[in-house]
This record gives sequence, C-alpha cells and structure tokens, in this order.
Amino acid sequence: MLDTQIAGYDFGGVPPSPVTMEDFRRLEAALEFTARDREALRRSSEVIASHAEELVDGWRAIIGAHDFLSHWFVGPDGKPDDVYKAAVKKRFVRWVVDLVTRPFDQAWLDYQQEIGLRHTPAKKNKTDGAATPTLVPLRYLQAFIAPVTLSVRPLLGRAGFNAEEVDLIHAAWTKAVILSVTLWSAPYVRDGLW
Amino acid sequence: MLDTQIAGYDFGGVPPSPVTMEDFRRLEAALEFTARDREALRRSSEVIASHAEELVDGWRAIIGAHDFLSHWFVGPDGKPDDVYKAAVKKRFVRWVVDLVTRPFDQAWLDYQQEIGLRHTPAKKNKTDGAATPTLVPLRYLQAFIAPVTLSVRPLLGRAGFNAEEVDLIHAAWTKAVILSVTLWSAPYVRDGLW
Repeated sequence: MLDTQIAGYDFGGVPPSPVTMEDFRRLEAALEFTARDREALRRSSEVIASHAEELVDGWRAIIGAHDFLSHWFVGPDGKPDDVYKAAVKKRFVRWVVDLVTRPFDQAWLDYQQEIGLRHTPAKKNKTDGAATPTLVPLRYLQAFIAPVTLSVRPLLGRAGFNAEEVDLIHAAWTKAVILSVTLWSAPYVRDGLW
Repeated sequence: MLDTQIAGYDFGGVPPSPVTMEDFRRLEAALEFTARDREALRRSSEVIASHAEELVDGWRAIIGAHDFLSHWFVGPDGKPDDVYKAAVKKRFVRWVVDLVTRPFDQAWLDYQQEIGLRHTPAKKNKTDGAATPTLVPLRYLQAFIAPVTLSVRPLLGRAGFNAEEVDLIHAAWTKAVILSVTLWSAPYVRDGLW
C-alpha cells in the first residue's frame, strides 16, 4: 500500500497538533484504551483493512440517503462533486486502515487534528481545490460514531472470530473510533472548553 | 419514582434548547435511530433502569482512578466535594433511566442542552451551589461514550437476553447515548460549527 497513491493524504507531513501527547494519553486512559485493545486491533487488522472500502461504502450509503448529509458534497452547481467525493473516499478508507495498523503516536495525533480541520471552514475543500459547503457540522461527525462502530461487529462474526474475540475487538474498535473523532472535534470547540 | 426526590433534576422546567426539533430528527436519521431502537430500549428498560446505579458506580470508578478526572469534583480546599458528587450522581442515574424510558421529545431535547450547560462555565456548580472547577472538558464527555456504551452489553447477557437481542439492544443503547452526548456538546462548540 503506497501512501503516495492517495492524493491529499499527508500523514507525517502536517503541522503539530495543539493537543499534547500528555493530554492524549489521558484521553486514552479515560476510555480505558490499553495495550490489550491495541493487540485486539492488531488481530483484526487484516480483516478490517481488507473490508475498509466496503465499510466506507456502507457509511457513504447513509450519507447518500439524506439530502441534509449529501449536501456537504455538493458543488456550486447544486450537483454532487464526484471528483471531490472520490478523493475524500480514498482518504476515509485509509483512515480505517490507519486506525487498526498505526500506533497512536505523535504523527497519528497530528493527523487527527488535520482531519478535523478538513471538516471545518479552516481547511474544508482546500486539499482538493473543491467548492462544496465549507463545513461538516460537528454533530454529524459525532453521530457517525454509531454506524462506524456498530457496522464492524457483524463483519467480525462473519470473518470467523468467536464471540469473546468479537467482543474484545469490537470494544477496541469502538474506543479507537471515539478517540479519533474526539480529536477531530478539537478545532470546533470554543477556546479552553475542549 | 418521584422526580421531586432528586435535587436539581429540573426535567420539564428548563429553557428551550437552541437545537430545533427538525435538526434533532435529522441527527436521529444520521445515526439511524428508528422505532425499532426505541422498541429495543423499551424491552431493556427494566433491566437497565434497575442496574442504573450500579452502572454509574462503574463509570464513577474510572473517574476515581484518575486525578485528571476526579479533579472536576474537587472543592477549593483540594478535597473531593462529596455533597456535590452525591447530588450529581443521583441525576446521572436518572439520566440512564430517562434514556431508556422517556420519548425523545421537546422536553427531553431541552434537558440535554441543560445537562451540557451544567458541564460548562455557564452552569457548572450553580445547581448545587458548589465551588468545584467550572468545567468538564468536552473531550472527557466524548471519551465516556466508550465505557457508557460498552458496559451495558455484559449486563444484558447476564439478564438473559439472547445474542440477537443483546446486539439489538446494545445498538439502540449506543445510538441513544451518542445522541445525548452529541446534544450535550452544543454549548461547547463555536458559533455555527455544531
């Protein structure tokens, strides 16, 4: 998998996150993300990564089913910007792969801030030179924690993990998704309240 | 269960939420909260409500295990404010009961805004006349989605629900918790970005 094949995927090349590593470790502790979760993600990484595009297609189907969600991908002509949608999708798929394969180190932390910014007026559209609305409201990023976490469970069962393993991996995945989306929320929040 | 026995539990008596019912219904649609989820919550309500205090004790144990979390309950003398903690706990337990028993109507929507505000400088401490720090940072409310959703699953299994029912109820509970916490986040977010 060559990172350079994904346009605008700037992992390792973005400004430092304003969130300190100490604050991030505290966040991990608050939701009890431990080495056991990291290990569970590792065991699931082949299955989840190989189904990442299918998962993203499922989440995109929810967006496509509602005008108030697909709206964020519409260009100034009122039509879906398919080039933008395709570019964003590749990075969305890569986010899934990163979540189960990359350590949550400084580079990963920095990139979560970048992803958050790319949903706000500060950076939305800029990576792709698009002209869609300049914001995805935070509430929809938060709401999507539900389909993004819940959709992985049946996949794990079908892949042959036993019930105990499904529970462990699903818990680890849930914590990882919440960690990531919580970091994305930082640029949306009033000074001092995040 | 008499609401009037819980000091500061002002359900039905708080200002209207700035979140419109239309925006709330869209949020429900975005995370696919449907009548099926409402029905699943109803089937679980006796079990979850009767274990609500035990669940809250478990979440409180995570807070108690970390200075950077228990900090938000400490008074100006540097010691835990036990009166404040006890008052907040009763309302936290009631939030669990409400989540599985109350319709998500205007009164419930209004009260989620009130709960959010009570974690910010606008209203923290005021209900109880306490003098603890004036904020619980948003990131910790978001992080707690993990223990709050994950801890209910084993409870459902022990209560005798079969595997399919556990999945349905757990999904409904997860969506309900995320809806609630997403509404709590509104007062934290910069104008126009929520």
